[in-house]
Amino acid sequence: MNYSSKLLEKAVDEVSQLPGIGKRTALRLVLHLLNRPKSQTLQLTEALENVIENVNFCQNCHNISDNEICEICANPKRNNEVVCVVEDIRDVMAIESTAQFQGHYHVLGGKISPMEGIGPHNLNIDSLIKKVNEGKLKELIFATSSTIEGDTTNFYIYKQLQNVTIKITSIARGISVGDELEYADEVSLGRSILNRIPFEHSLKR
Amino acid sequence: MNYSSKLLEKAVDEVSQLPGIGKRTALRLVLHLLNRPKSQTLQLTEALENVIENVNFCQNCHNISDNEICEICANPKRNNEVVCVVEDIRDVMAIESTAQFQGHYHVLGGKISPMEGIGPHNLNIDSLIKKVNEGKLKELIFATSSTIEGDTTNFYIYKQLQNVTIKITSIARGISVGDELEYADEVSLGRSILNRIPFEHSLKR
Repeated sequence: MNYSSKLLEKAVDEVSQLPGIGKRTALRLVLHLLNRPKSQTLQLTEALENVIENVNFCQNCHNISDNEICEICANPKRNNEVVCVVEDIRDVMAIESTAQFQGHYHVLGGKISPMEGIGPHNLNIDSLIKKVNEGKLKELIFATSSTIEGDTTNFYIYKQLQNVTIKITSIARGISVGDELEYADEVSLGRSILNRIPFEHSLKR
Repeated sequence: MNYSSKLLEKAVDEVSQLPGIGKRTALRLVLHLLNRPKSQTLQLTEALENVIENVNFCQNCHNISDNEICEICANPKRNNEVVCVVEDIRDVMAIESTAQFQGHYHVLGGKISPMEGIGPHNLNIDSLIKKVNEGKLKELIFATSSTIEGDTTNFYIYKQLQNVTIKITSIARGISVGDELEYADEVSLGRSILNRIPFEHSLKR
């Protein structure tokens, strides 16, 4: 495509390197930036520069944070004996927005996936094992994706902790709230029957 | 959503102001920026700052340009007596990529649309009328969208030029190349019959 302007072409090239954004969308976005007040776009670029230059990852749980220790780990009201193991900081946000969990997190930074060349040593597993071996934790909750890679990651960590006395749980798999049984997939439905719970528990929301 | 980091929240807020990008996509994009080398993201922000600070619009045709006069207007090999009137610089790129047009362009910067509060005075129409009145042009080609707003814009310009002797044409509307008649819309099919051309002409590609 002939952009008439090298500056425009360069900007479109850079934007189109973002995931899920092709050349056409990139062009639309850059032209949008040109049409709005300059100050707004400078705010955008400044915010992006700030976040990549200054953001930290919590030394304790590897969650994203403005300080060395994240707000969750630094909060004295939270239970530091229960740790929820998640893949990604987006999973922390998702669980936090349920307001059902008051413990700490441990962000692995991905899941074991030989297909993508990600092994255990590319993830924050060693620091988790170390944390457990210190003996202060009572429960570890696996909240990774319900996929083969997620299950493999859980199993790998579980194997590493076989000599440690700690309660290891996994979040419940089953039928989503609001789902019709007719349209649910067989595996989830099967698991929801195997892992049935006393009716009184299901009354809690 | 709880972002754990004010810097991240600010960056996501800014990115989600772009058209077609919601909070979730913005978060995905910002986390992607965090995961790749800093230098790449600095290149992105620099390219964006460069384009909004330094890009010009051609004084002749209002196309985007790195200089005061765009490459197309500055090219002596192009026919400056034929001007193609388009809405947007993206339309210039689209027509340029066909390699079928060797004249100049005039970018209106939009189309007359009372619904969006865009009147003739918000567009680069005055400079077009002035250009025509100078008497150097031989043909004006309307290549605006085939919509009511596009047709209104063409008609408005046409009316302004009734006292000037200049050939005014419009790009052909009809069946797209590769389309099956069965699935074509009635209006396009109707127009393609009304505006039929000698068979010899249709052999040109």
